[in-house]
Amino acid sequence: MLEQVDLTQKLDREEYKSLISDMRLKLGELQRQAKNQKIPVIVVFEGWDAAGKGTLINQLMQALDPRGYNVFPTNPPVEEEQLRPFLWRFWCRTPEQTRIAILDRSWYGRVLVERVDKVVPKKQWSTAYEEIKAFERQLADAGNVIVKFFLHITKKEQKKRFEKIESDPALRWKVTKTDWRHHRQYEKYLAAVEDMLAKTDTSYGPWTIVEAHDRRFATVKIFRTMIQSIEEAISRLQTTNKSRKEKGNAIVKKPETSTSVLDKVDLSLTLTKEQYTEKIKKRQQRIREVEHEIYRKRVPVIILYEGWDAAGKGGNIRRLTEEMDPRGFEVVPVAAPNDVELAHHYLWRFWKAIPKAGHITIFDRSWYGRVMVERVEGFCSQDEWKRAYQEINEMESQFANYGVVLVKFWLQIDQATQLARFEERQEVTYKQWKITDEDWRNREKWDRYKEAVDEMLFRTSTSYAPWTIIESNCKYYARVKTIETVIKAVESRL
Amino acid sequence: MLEQVDLTQKLDREEYKSLISDMRLKLGELQRQAKNQKIPVIVVFEGWDAAGKGTLINQLMQALDPRGYNVFPTNPPVEEEQLRPFLWRFWCRTPEQTRIAILDRSWYGRVLVERVDKVVPKKQWSTAYEEIKAFERQLADAGNVIVKFFLHITKKEQKKRFEKIESDPALRWKVTKTDWRHHRQYEKYLAAVEDMLAKTDTSYGPWTIVEAHDRRFATVKIFRTMIQSIEEAISRLQTTNKSRKEKGNAIVKKPETSTSVLDKVDLSLTLTKEQYTEKIKKRQQRIREVEHEIYRKRVPVIILYEGWDAAGKGGNIRRLTEEMDPRGFEVVPVAAPNDVELAHHYLWRFWKAIPKAGHITIFDRSWYGRVMVERVEGFCSQDEWKRAYQEINEMESQFANYGVVLVKFWLQIDQATQLARFEERQEVTYKQWKITDEDWRNREKWDRYKEAVDEMLFRTSTSYAPWTIIESNCKYYARVKTIETVIKAVESRL
Repeated sequence: MLEQVDLTQKLDREEYKSLISDMRLKLGELQRQAKNQKIPVIVVFEGWDAAGKGTLINQLMQALDPRGYNVFPTNPPVEEEQLRPFLWRFWCRTPEQTRIAILDRSWYGRVLVERVDKVVPKKQWSTAYEEIKAFERQLADAGNVIVKFFLHITKKEQKKRFEKIESDPALRWKVTKTDWRHHRQYEKYLAAVEDMLAKTDTSYGPWTIVEAHDRRFATVKIFRTMIQSIEEAISRLQTTNKSRKEKGNAIVKKPETSTSVLDKVDLSLTLTKEQYTEKIKKRQQRIREVEHEIYRKRVPVIILYEGWDAAGKGGNIRRLTEEMDPRGFEVVPVAAPNDVELAHHYLWRFWKAIPKAGHITIFDRSWYGRVMVERVEGFCSQDEWKRAYQEINEMESQFANYGVVLVKFWLQIDQATQLARFEERQEVTYKQWKITDEDWRNREKWDRYKEAVDEMLFRTSTSYAPWTIIESNCKYYARVKTIETVIKAVESRL
Repeated sequence: MLEQVDLTQKLDREEYKSLISDMRLKLGELQRQAKNQKIPVIVVFEGWDAAGKGTLINQLMQALDPRGYNVFPTNPPVEEEQLRPFLWRFWCRTPEQTRIAILDRSWYGRVLVERVDKVVPKKQWSTAYEEIKAFERQLADAGNVIVKFFLHITKKEQKKRFEKIESDPALRWKVTKTDWRHHRQYEKYLAAVEDMLAKTDTSYGPWTIVEAHDRRFATVKIFRTMIQSIEEAISRLQTTNKSRKEKGNAIVKKPETSTSVLDKVDLSLTLTKEQYTEKIKKRQQRIREVEHEIYRKRVPVIILYEGWDAAGKGGNIRRLTEEMDPRGFEVVPVAAPNDVELAHHYLWRFWKAIPKAGHITIFDRSWYGRVMVERVEGFCSQDEWKRAYQEINEMESQFANYGVVLVKFWLQIDQATQLARFEERQEVTYKQWKITDEDWRNREKWDRYKEAVDEMLFRTSTSYAPWTIIESNCKYYARVKTIETVIKAVESRL
């Protein structure tokens, strides 16, 4: 791929000047349009050392309103980053809908420097390709424009540039031993680059190879690509909006799951108070030990709770954590997204909250809101929630690849039990805050929620992240079963 | 102080049970009230190793709605944290108005373990006292409740507990060599603790010493203190709201600055295009070198721009950064706060954005919005903006203590120039986005803004963070002067 690139292309000063000033204005204008239409843009700069990334990124920045972009240099991951799946730090940097993120090196480090320098074993960098593609596709599906540049220079040119920098006493420090070592390994890197370009050049995240021997030529190519990419995204958005309007009244097919998993749940399971008190004490002691083991062995654990209103999530979480060491776990309550969260990909806030290795995060409600409340209440489009099953499975498989133990609970109760609990909440003074009008409204939509839950359990029960249904008509039974499930899931990994 | 503490106090099981269940309900209720009234709560747990912090924090957590708090364990600072003033990471963790932050160890590590173990030189931990007090006062003034617990046990008791933990094979790893070393230095620590308690026991952030030999006694004391503190805050808030209403129409005194600094600015200063082109080129080359020096010597730099609308901030920043390496600087545009920012202390978002050592952050508008637009437009109360001068000076002095080079620009133009630029913006197509109705409205309030600017320049020009007024009727002159000022300020530190 790279061998066919014509590196002799040049622009003289006058040609460049005449081209670039119009392009600058155009790009500034497109930035404002993208902002108004809420199109986030992600620009990735990869390339050889000394290919001029810094200079070219600066050229691009000069054309942009500084209020609308961020530049993220990608350094080797710090400890906080190493303790989480490798895409975590990049998820955290995905732009708001109105912004441009410019990445000086990126997630591709995983399949370049980390691969060639053998920082990670083959298994990790080879699975990274799938993870990267899923990441980019998810962002593209949510409306992100992804522009990826690879700045190309020859080995000879690189050597010339290193030597030039070294000849300047003030800049000499910039060329390190590692740079020279990488230079000597140019061919090895070339093979990795070719592999990367071949495997990750997609319709939603296409690569643009920039001939970087001539700075003016490279600048113009970068500008032209940026302009085209944003223009296309804007016109695509207009088409989508139009077709969405037309499709608005399409008939929604029933999901393929014909029988209900929920109907088969045995809600008669119970424990007496005595049985409960005895069991829960023991399990709580055990979970504290398990928590210490997790910490020592650096295992990350995610426990998530979904379930009907009044199914007892809060009390259940409380019993699970009662004897745990607060330094080792965190409870993340998930409510309606705030405006910063709304301006990002819907998975962004969950990625941000995942535990580092050795810690436990307990989600009280979770990303499954996308295929339940957002689906039923129409907070997202049909395309969006239908796509979400795959997106969620991909995310969870990335967690699993990293070694996360993922435990997912659905707390099941029947309608009669829910009604009894709602009524109790209204009667007992200190429980009244727990019940709102919205709870009553949701209750009326029981069947529609049930349909959504059934489909969710069907589509997102995977070998690496299975659902556990907790029979919760009896709270005692439910609490003991969740805590035992967590213990078992973690023990099987220790 | 600690020697007079009676560590023999105890509660038996029955007394404890009867007290704690009511207190739990009460505390849960107060948490909801604090949430509704937007009172953020910060709870600090300090104390001897093995005093039972983990267990007691967990007791507290069990009484709280997990949707409303976060627990932050405080570990030794990681690299990202070491490269910023020591309070940075704690500022980042200050709670939203509706939340409780529970800190397992805290900023007091600076004057305890970091002092005794000589991690930082005396100069640093002794100035930390003032910084800590300013930090707590600023939070308290903004409505935060600050509750600080010191869990006290004797040296003998500590030894007993260490030995007990070590006798359990599953827990043995928890007692480290460092723990035993600290134990042997108990007296040295005791002196540091006494010093800390004496110096930081304030009306806005009082210490509560918890006798921690008996777990039940300690739990009850912690609950009682929490309940009292939150109740007091709620009743204080009611009084304040009342008195604020009454004070609403008080006459605003003229600021003490009788003459205007702005009137004395010589706006006739100019450069010709030729002079400009020659100078700016050279300075841009120099600033690039300076940027590299900053990186090598790990100097943090903050440059902030304030000025009239159309004074040329954007263009000025662009010329300053045109040749700079994008990996070394970031431009942070400051607009109206989003809802997450609004729910925090107004300085929170700026603390979050400060550069790490070796990097430059350029603020396009800044925290000075508090004493300009927020003052003039009435977005904050008079108490709030009057208090802000001190708060800002304190923050900037903390930056300076850490070694930050802080350069503050006021871009001055006269009204005629502003009018001419506004009109140009309306006429030239590609500049139209730059002008809004709001700009015209602000222009009408010129005199009131001028008064605010004068007071700001007067009150916040300090030896460690002086203002530089940039005569900006001639943009060429302004651009050269800012870039030269930055170069000089940084050079004096290299």
